[in-house]
Amino acid sequence: MSESRFAIGVDFGTESGRSVLVNVADGRELATAVYRYRNGVIDEHLPAPHDRIRLESDWALQDPEDYIRTLQETVPRLLAETGVEPSHVIGVGIDFTACTMLPTTADGTPLCYLDEFRHLPHAWVKLWKHHSAQPEADLINALARDRGEPWLPRYGGKISSEWFFSKALQILGEAPELYAAAGRLIEAADWVVWQLTGHETRNSCTAGYKAIWSKRDGFPSDAYFGALDPRFRHVVDQKMSRHITSIGHRAGGLSQKAAAWTGLRPGTAVAVANVDAHVSVPAATVTEPGTMVMIMGTSICHIVLGDRPATVEGMCGVVEDGVIPGLFGFEAGQSAVGDIFAWFVENMVPPEYHEMARRQGIDVHVALEQQASRLRPGESGLLALDWWNGNRSVLVDVDLSGLIVGATLATKAPEIYRALIEATAFGTRMIVDAFESSGVAVGRIVACGGLPERNKLLMQIYADVIGREFRIAASEQTPALGSAMFGAVAAGKAAGGYDSITEASQHMARLRDEKYEVSDENHAVYEQLYGQYVRLHDLFGRGSNDVMKNLRKIRSEALSATQPIS
Amino acid sequence: MSESRFAIGVDFGTESGRSVLVNVADGRELATAVYRYRNGVIDEHLPAPHDRIRLESDWALQDPEDYIRTLQETVPRLLAETGVEPSHVIGVGIDFTACTMLPTTADGTPLCYLDEFRHLPHAWVKLWKHHSAQPEADLINALARDRGEPWLPRYGGKISSEWFFSKALQILGEAPELYAAAGRLIEAADWVVWQLTGHETRNSCTAGYKAIWSKRDGFPSDAYFGALDPRFRHVVDQKMSRHITSIGHRAGGLSQKAAAWTGLRPGTAVAVANVDAHVSVPAATVTEPGTMVMIMGTSICHIVLGDRPATVEGMCGVVEDGVIPGLFGFEAGQSAVGDIFAWFVENMVPPEYHEMARRQGIDVHVALEQQASRLRPGESGLLALDWWNGNRSVLVDVDLSGLIVGATLATKAPEIYRALIEATAFGTRMIVDAFESSGVAVGRIVACGGLPERNKLLMQIYADVIGREFRIAASEQTPALGSAMFGAVAAGKAAGGYDSITEASQHMARLRDEKYEVSDENHAVYEQLYGQYVRLHDLFGRGSNDVMKNLRKIRSEALSATQPIS
Repeated sequence: MSESRFAIGVDFGTESGRSVLVNVADGRELATAVYRYRNGVIDEHLPAPHDRIRLESDWALQDPEDYIRTLQETVPRLLAETGVEPSHVIGVGIDFTACTMLPTTADGTPLCYLDEFRHLPHAWVKLWKHHSAQPEADLINALARDRGEPWLPRYGGKISSEWFFSKALQILGEAPELYAAAGRLIEAADWVVWQLTGHETRNSCTAGYKAIWSKRDGFPSDAYFGALDPRFRHVVDQKMSRHITSIGHRAGGLSQKAAAWTGLRPGTAVAVANVDAHVSVPAATVTEPGTMVMIMGTSICHIVLGDRPATVEGMCGVVEDGVIPGLFGFEAGQSAVGDIFAWFVENMVPPEYHEMARRQGIDVHVALEQQASRLRPGESGLLALDWWNGNRSVLVDVDLSGLIVGATLATKAPEIYRALIEATAFGTRMIVDAFESSGVAVGRIVACGGLPERNKLLMQIYADVIGREFRIAASEQTPALGSAMFGAVAAGKAAGGYDSITEASQHMARLRDEKYEVSDENHAVYEQLYGQYVRLHDLFGRGSNDVMKNLRKIRSEALSATQPIS
Repeated sequence: MSESRFAIGVDFGTESGRSVLVNVADGRELATAVYRYRNGVIDEHLPAPHDRIRLESDWALQDPEDYIRTLQETVPRLLAETGVEPSHVIGVGIDFTACTMLPTTADGTPLCYLDEFRHLPHAWVKLWKHHSAQPEADLINALARDRGEPWLPRYGGKISSEWFFSKALQILGEAPELYAAAGRLIEAADWVVWQLTGHETRNSCTAGYKAIWSKRDGFPSDAYFGALDPRFRHVVDQKMSRHITSIGHRAGGLSQKAAAWTGLRPGTAVAVANVDAHVSVPAATVTEPGTMVMIMGTSICHIVLGDRPATVEGMCGVVEDGVIPGLFGFEAGQSAVGDIFAWFVENMVPPEYHEMARRQGIDVHVALEQQASRLRPGESGLLALDWWNGNRSVLVDVDLSGLIVGATLATKAPEIYRALIEATAFGTRMIVDAFESSGVAVGRIVACGGLPERNKLLMQIYADVIGREFRIAASEQTPALGSAMFGAVAAGKAAGGYDSITEASQHMARLRDEKYEVSDENHAVYEQLYGQYVRLHDLFGRGSNDVMKNLRKIRSEALSATQPIS
């Protein structure tokens, strides 16, 4: 009987990095270790000694050293805690937030490591939620529309300010000398793999979803980039690479240096980098078309696989080899879900529910959920549009805002809480309908992430609204598990791993036994409410009523007025 | 130098009655006395010994004995406290909530005083907010529309379930034996004057605003009443009276019995009864066309005088002699104003503001006002439709509901609080615009009631939204003062009073010195926001989008479903 083999997955998040050590045979998670980034999200000023350099609002940076420290801190702990022999760890995979990118020298040294650039905010890692590149995104979109760029429809007609070229163009515009000094502009995910293996690779997932790359057509043309800015014409050849490696491949073997950081053996297989949401799909057992995976937390990311391209209204992107090699990965999203509930609890819940929760020793969310679960669908008379952070998919419009209708003097907090949950479910339903009407089948749904763990009412409402059974991934850390699975695939069957992510998923991923089945009775009521939701969605979202836009304009003018108010 | 003369006004409210003793020469209020009704609002069960008789929801009754106790308790206290000689009290006036009505025998004995009827809910006083006569109101309106009744436009096209004939018809339908036994159906206001003077009068204010009477056309036809129900054909002649006395007249002299209750002298002049809102108009110095009086509290009543009739969209009513003899009194209303702010504070304000208020020793409303007053108009990006209790004027639709749009993850409670204040101001602005576009001039505005006392931010927002200076009545109890003024007019100049309410108003009513002047800068922003409000108002209120109605329907169906929810 052969000895067990293990893989390690490292999930680089917004505030911390998390590593998990997994049994390759069955996906059992033996240990987890978390490192909270020393410099966290850098959004007010640079770290000392440059802490007098203040950042503008909407900036969000990270320190690449925190990624290295994550490796140094967590992997040795996994080994120590489990007693697993380094030689039995056959592969390592990582996943990351995205687009999270940085400028480096040609040898991969982050420019923020260099004294001459360390005081420049643009030298640091731009985190996914760095939002100050909106003017650049606007330019990218306007020019693409004008030129009829063929790649624009793949991204729902809009490139985000969070994405790679928006951020790159911001560096060029605001720090041209630093742009010039950058040998490479690279996703942090790929940079970490570079540090692990000693050579540069670029993964198909971030390239496809965040950098407008496609397997068939490559990047946008030099002519297009040149039209954005003549100095940007050769950004791909000068700062990036046209050699994109599909996820599911081996990036290389662990370097001596990285082996020293981690305690693993030099040469251990390292997978090509991946993105936290996308790597969760096989970890949620899904490797074939027809099942939607929802990564549910502060926001929701929806991923469906397809065997052919399709244009889906307002989707975030479709990337061949973006999620599972050989398939098209369709991505959509809702920009605020758990965030809306958190906003509500923080800003709109009166003391009585806080006291109720305290008496029962439960969270306020749970107290509200208990109260809300006693309501029948439709009973509150409330309906909301879930656009507290704009609309990411279908409408792709950050200027939309939250709306609630149906309030009376008898309306209570749990009713609004439930209406907000329902609104986010309606938002998902819109996305499911958009996929299906474009020929991308959504037969089953599997959820993962933080929300499904915590909120049974929410899951039941989603099942009842969408009219599909919901299953939940067994792992509570699907990104890290997914990364470990890709690590096992990078190792390959010969080394005790697997030859494909599909095979790895069959052995290493599981669903929970519990199912959220559709209540026909509730579904019938929600069909009616969804009809009303769609009417408001289309009314306010598709341009026939621009009150939301006008309120934004009035707001901007009010905020830009300089005189003090009376 | 002649000795001072005094008048007493008694304001019969929802929970209590309030009397004030006023110097006739200058309106100075020497003393106030309040009696809290022993049986309060009867809305759960009848008083003992019939307390096992439970009331359906939406019922609201009162005990007429509480009105008599108010006279017995408060007037002697006023005299004792001030030492004023009863002979120096020249007149008494009263005002009431309306329509608050009761069935009596032909001699004015309330049916609820009689053992045979005391256990019947329909024998008691139906308070203004008794809301269970909606089916009767629906019938009244449908039949009036079908028949093209000429009086319907005077009431904005809709008779309320709160009004006289809705309530009378409910008695007929649900307690026909009691209806048959009733010699009179009468406003409580007129009933109290009957008890004071010993003979029945009916005032033009309640007859006009609540009982579809007009000076020129009288009541609806017997044919109309007969079409509602054959037994209702002669309701006016059998249960009411066609002899309506204009407010401003003397109803009679105080009876021996009432003199004994009050300690006043028999024969003291008693004014024809009045309504709390309407009697406030001259107490707020207004006796001529061109100035709108707003009685601002849990709801708002708007009254403007005109010298000719006009049809104003969705107004509550227009009554000749309804407010000031010889003029047309136009009434409009907003069904929830202070109620919305109270709802918000009770249901939507998180602990931090309650704690802030506690630390400062102030009310939560004040804490929110402080925070909200730091915001610029438009800065929150929020806009609300103030229909938490439907829309009373312009749209006249109880099925409309509250809406708020513009919410983001950064939205804070004081921003919503301010948006709710602004929404009620926009609602008033709609009413002002409706008046003006129908030729009823609204030049100045005078506010009275509880809200203007307490909330300076609210008054400033109203001035800025409406674009008109706001003044505030000096008296904090304008209804009682107005009643005392009408008492002085009932006494007449010969007795030391006045010959007209205009004359009384000139001497006895005053405004505060403080003014709320329009900020041109804020007004300009509010013009933009009001434009957006009007668009949503018309969209949801005028039928082109019926989402609010559909939510009500779905809600009714959900509440009528009998099976327990999952």
